[in-house]
Parts: sequence; C-alpha cells; structure tokens
Amino acid sequence: MTVKNAFYAQSGGVTAVINASASGVIETARQHPDKIGTVYAGRNGIIGALTEELIDTSKESADDIAALRHTPSGGFGSCRFKLKSLEDNKREYERLIDVFKAHNIGYFFYNGGGDSADTCHKVSQLSEKMGFPIQAIHVPKTVDNDLPITDNCPGFGSVAKYIAVSALEASFDVRSMAKTSTKIFVLEVMGRHAGWIAAAGGLIEDQNIPVVILFPEIEFNQDKFTAKVDEKVKEYGYCTIVVSEGTHYPDGRFLAEQGTRDSFGHAQLGGAAPVVANIIKDALGYKFHWAVADYLQRAARHLSSKSDVEQAYALGKAGVEFAVAGDNAIMPTVDRISDSPYEWKIGKANLADVANVEKMMPMDFITEDGFGITDKCKAYLLPLIDGEDYPPYKNGLPDYVVLKNESIEKKLPEFEI
Amino acid sequence: MTVKNAFYAQSGGVTAVINASASGVIETARQHPDKIGTVYAGRNGIIGALTEELIDTSKESADDIAALRHTPSGGFGSCRFKLKSLEDNKREYERLIDVFKAHNIGYFFYNGGGDSADTCHKVSQLSEKMGFPIQAIHVPKTVDNDLPITDNCPGFGSVAKYIAVSALEASFDVRSMAKTSTKIFVLEVMGRHAGWIAAAGGLIEDQNIPVVILFPEIEFNQDKFTAKVDEKVKEYGYCTIVVSEGTHYPDGRFLAEQGTRDSFGHAQLGGAAPVVANIIKDALGYKFHWAVADYLQRAARHLSSKSDVEQAYALGKAGVEFAVAGDNAIMPTVDRISDSPYEWKIGKANLADVANVEKMMPMDFITEDGFGITDKCKAYLLPLIDGEDYPPYKNGLPDYVVLKNESIEKKLPEFEI
Repeated sequence: MTVKNAFYAQSGGVTAVINASASGVIETARQHPDKIGTVYAGRNGIIGALTEELIDTSKESADDIAALRHTPSGGFGSCRFKLKSLEDNKREYERLIDVFKAHNIGYFFYNGGGDSADTCHKVSQLSEKMGFPIQAIHVPKTVDNDLPITDNCPGFGSVAKYIAVSALEASFDVRSMAKTSTKIFVLEVMGRHAGWIAAAGGLIEDQNIPVVILFPEIEFNQDKFTAKVDEKVKEYGYCTIVVSEGTHYPDGRFLAEQGTRDSFGHAQLGGAAPVVANIIKDALGYKFHWAVADYLQRAARHLSSKSDVEQAYALGKAGVEFAVAGDNAIMPTVDRISDSPYEWKIGKANLADVANVEKMMPMDFITEDGFGITDKCKAYLLPLIDGEDYPPYKNGLPDYVVLKNESIEKKLPEFEI
Repeated sequence: MTVKNAFYAQSGGVTAVINASASGVIETARQHPDKIGTVYAGRNGIIGALTEELIDTSKESADDIAALRHTPSGGFGSCRFKLKSLEDNKREYERLIDVFKAHNIGYFFYNGGGDSADTCHKVSQLSEKMGFPIQAIHVPKTVDNDLPITDNCPGFGSVAKYIAVSALEASFDVRSMAKTSTKIFVLEVMGRHAGWIAAAGGLIEDQNIPVVILFPEIEFNQDKFTAKVDEKVKEYGYCTIVVSEGTHYPDGRFLAEQGTRDSFGHAQLGGAAPVVANIIKDALGYKFHWAVADYLQRAARHLSSKSDVEQAYALGKAGVEFAVAGDNAIMPTVDRISDSPYEWKIGKANLADVANVEKMMPMDFITEDGFGITDKCKAYLLPLIDGEDYPPYKNGLPDYVVLKNESIEKKLPEFEI
C-alpha cells in the first residue's frame, strides 16, 4: 500500500469536544507513517477542500495537537455547507477529485452530524462512481445526539452535563429567593427537532428539585403547562423550567417565533424562554427569571464530561484505524455494553445506514404527562455526563490552543463556490 | 463576658460563594464557645428574625457546614426586604429586640450588599438608640461589586470568571463558524447600575479576540456601536459583544425595555441581548446568536474563582473574630496590597461609611471609545478570577449540600410583616 495523505474537516455547528476527535485523528495518523502521509485539514470545513485551502497539520507541534483535546470549537474552522448529490452538482465532486489528486489524498475524514454523514457517504462513492480511489470515514459529532446506531454522539454528553449543572445551580439560587422574590426560573436549551438536551435538565429531579421540561416532541399545551408549574410551585415554593428551542404549538409554530414586534412594529427574533416566562407571569403572576444558554452550552469545554471527551477522542482514533485497515463508507460508533457501570466499546456502522436518518427521543424516555423524563431515560443519560475533564488554566482562564493553521501552497486554479 | 448567641442571615440576591461566608461565620463561631453560643440563621434572611423562624445551625454536622464552602446559593434562604428607618418603623426594630432577647442573641451577622449594609448599620444602633446591647457586623456579598472601601465583594470574582470563560468559549465557537454562518455573538450579563461584570468580558481581548462591551456607565449610541462592531468584523471576521443589562439610551430607557410587544399588543419583558442582536442585524446584516446568562452566572459555583472562595470564607471568619474582639457597626474588607502577585489582607470599614454608598467603575477603567476596558482595569480584575476551586462531584453532578435547616421552638406571639 502506498502512502497517501489524508483530508480532515470539521462540519456544522462545533462542540466542546470536536477538537478532541481532531486530536484523535491526527495523533493516530501520525502513528501510521507507513500508511498515512500528511493530514491536511480543510480550512472552514469542506469549503477548504473546494477552495484548496488545506492546512498542513504536520506544522503543528505534538503539544498543540494534544491540546486540541481540551480546546472547544473547531480548531480548523467549520462551515454550514452541504454538497448536493452527484447528479445535481457534479462540478463540486470533480473539483474535490482534482484537489485530492493534486495533493495525493486517499483518505477523507469528515467530522460532523447528519448532513455531514450524507456528504461523507457521497464522497465514499467517488471510487465507484467516478473512478477515484478514496476511503471516506465519518467521525460522528453533534450536540443534538440525533445520529442513529451509535449509543450517543460526541458533543452531546458535555452539553447534557452543562445543562444539568446549570439547571441545578440556578435551582439552588431560586430556592433561596423564592420566599419573597423569584419563584420561576426558565432555561432555554438547544434542540430544534429532538429533546435530548432538554431531557438532561430532568437529571436534577433526583435531588428533590421541581423541574418541568418542554420538549419539541410534545405539542405545547398552555393550560396543562401552567397547571403543572403551579402544582410544583404550590408543593416546593418554586419551579425550574427547561424549554427546548424547538418547543412548538400544535400548528407547528415555534414558541420562539410567536410574532413579537418592537415599538416600531418590526418583527423581533426572540427566544422561547422569555415567551414561556411571560406565559407564566400572565397566567400565575409569579416572579420569574430566564436564561438562554445558546452557544455557551455547546462551547463549555470547562465543564465537559469525561466520558464525552474520551469517546470523542476514541472515535477519531478509531476512524483512522478503520481507514488503515481498509474500510470505506463507515462511521465508528459507540456501542453501549451496560449502563451501570457504564461500559462501551467502539463499533462500526455503514454510512448508508446513517445518512439522512434522525434518531428521535424514544417516547418511553418522556413521562406520561409530557413534562419529565423516565427512569429509563435517566439510566441512558447519567453515564454520558459522568466524570470531569478540566482544561488547564492560565491567569484564571482556560489555556485553549490556537493552532498556527498554515495553508499549503495551492496547485490549482481558483474555484468559485 | 457572658456567652451570647449569634444571629446570621443572608440577604438579597445570592451568589456562588455567599455560603462560603456562612461556612466561615459558623466554623469560626464554633471555635469560640466561650464567647458565642449557638449561631441561629434567619430562615429567608431578616424575615426569619422578624417571624422568629430561627434555624439552629448547631444541628448541622461539621461536614455539612464545611460543604457550604463549595455550595452556591443561600443555604438558609435569602430575601429582598429592607428595614425602614427606626423612625419610620419602630415596630420592626422592637420586634427584632424581642426576638433577640427571647433567644439571648448578642451578635448580628448580616451577609449582603448595599441595602443590607444599611440595615446592619441600623441594627448596630439599637444599643445606643433603644438600649439593647448588640454587636452588628456586616459580611459583604454582592456580584455587583459595588460596595465601597473593600477591594472587591465576594461573589463578584466568580461571576467575572464565569463571564470571561463563557465569552472566551463562545468566541472560539463563533470564530469557527464565521466563514459561512454566525459572525456576531451577544452575551447579556448582570449589572443594572455598574459595569463591573460586563468589564470581565474584556479580559479575553488579550487572547486576540474582538470584544465590544456595552456598559451601563456609557450612554448607548447606536451608530457608534454598529460602526465599532463592523470594524471588528472586517478585521477579525467575527465579533463578540458583551452587553450589560443596564445599558441604556441617553434618555435613561434601558435597551431591554424598548417596548417590545407580542402579537396581541401585550408588552413583553425581553432582554438587552436580543435587542442588540436585532440592531446589528438591521444595520449590518450579520448572522448572530445571543445568550442571556442571568442566574447561571451568579450561581455557577462549578467555575468559581479560588480567590473569591477564599475571600468569601475569610470575610465570614473575620466578621466573627471582630465581633469576639468587641467590634460593632463594622464590615470586614479585602484590602489589596499588590496586583501581581496578588496580595491582600483583611481590613475593617465603619458601616457608617459603607451604607448607601455605591462604588462605580472608575472612568479610567473604560477605554476612551467607551467599548472596552483599560490595562488598569485588567490589572484590577485578573487577580479576582484567578485560580479554580472545583466542588466535588457525584454521578456527574456537583455534590452540593442541602442543610437540615431545623427551626428552634418559637417563644413569642406571631408577628405580621
């Protein structure tokens, strides 16, 4: 087997641990110099492949590549860009082949979610459909936790931990204040289609904290919701509400888009949290506070779960090992062996089975009233938030790495995207 | 000196470290059994004194009192309740004296911010004005950092660390996405009158991150603001904005209250962050994300600064030591000796000099353009976010303590507040 170079790219929304997967890919590739030459990273994801902006990761020190493991975000830049099908945009695939040929690239590692799995699958077919030999491996990543087959997706465990810890801390706060002041705390979390992240808020219930969760899977019913919250306040004196950004009315309208307008009549882009808070205020009169975690939740490497970091790294590593062993069109997966103690091993899924399949929350993970999580859900989630893996600090701030990110010289003409 | 009991209460908005001060008060009092009997904590702050709901802290184990040091929120409950002046509401002061007499209380430790310092000052005058001997000591606490004389206020350093770390992590995230997606991240932070918390966002600038800060001290000028943000985006490709909740127009209107209405015409309570995000969108067209940290920032014990925890504990301890030494009407302070290395010692302020004085940001802490912090400000802030002091974890979540909080038997008739 000749030594081919590898292309690696980060895709879609970044996470606290996607760089840990990058570290796993690059460190493992460096251990196989007989099979893999240089790992070129796409600057800003797949766009870097199309524009021939290839970052030479061999210029990065071993220390810096190791430091990616504790650095959130996408160290090489990411993008939101989905390749069309081969039939619809052959030009882009031809360009990919030109770039791969020009730089002797034989491995394609794509680190992303559902859309990226689809792109990766298309690239994996280049051998067969366009006669260009390449091995394409998808390294899973998404805070949404919606990829099939794998037990969970790197990025999710850390968000889940962040949301559970944040909800716990804020609940302690509200409990302190509830006698004369704030009785309701609303936390808005990510998850437009699936309630995995919102579900993590339910993990604090076992500490005797009243939590009401609004899932995108459950149509919003205002009367049932306010009744549930009032019941909790009457019992506990306060209530914490975790609302998924994807919570919507039966007609599909998101709570976050219920047509708020500023004083000039312009439509305002708001969040679901203030809407929920105002619903409670209007219906029950309780004083509230609300927070919108947004990027803070997915970037919070300072609070990543140890199991998430380990799996992110392990999946990057496994991706390279599968490639070296000759695989194509696959995604390494986390296979759960047992909940408690949590045991898992690396598995393998065919990309054909992954692309364009969305894993929703099983309905038996949500309590019958639609506002909480079941014990089965807790058993699933708890191992994923387990353990801490703190980054090093310098002068009070995490010592995250910024790579040199030097591009190699271009060999091809410009390409218009 | 006879052995008198002590009263301790938490007041106003709670913080990540107010319980560390409680731990300092109670542990130190326990070391002086010849001077201090039992520490009774007011259930929900001073209200507990008026209603004779006194928590017997001697029922709490040494381990639990020690665990308060790593537990956010107010372990005994807090309240928003300000005593009127002696002249305006003599009845409440008489009640306090009745309760203190009934339970042989000779020490009053009040753990709070500016309003509480005022209340504590009034209680300290009970000896003189109403012939009831009591020593009143104020233990400083406020995330707003607006108490005078002391170098800083416990609670602030941890919020500052949380905001700096969160802004850093989100900035890394946005930098990854900026090529094809989000270019603007807006983080709303606490601080209605003073920009101390917002200032902490400026600490990440030294990592070559473009930050624009909106302070309550600087009247909002939309054109200057959007021009500044655009300049940053053109230079860096993205920009992080930290907006204080107290940011306002020249006429005093808060950005957060600019009259947003829902589709039914009801006034909506919104945040400053979405308003700022929409201003940018309208003026510059950049894609944005925004977050509102709200209670998450002040409750985030998982990310407290070590110096903050140490000072919170030390001030509680010093309060008791001053009391045992015979002081009245004082507040222990943090006196800064040097910035780097950060050295400090405990000092003492007269409550008469503390009550009703608000410490604003010095204008030479804000850059001339009004959107950043100066080196002088950084030298002040950096020691306050220094060091980490992680809580223990159990099953993936911080192992925060919940006290037994048993009330002692009441001896007096009910009292209507």
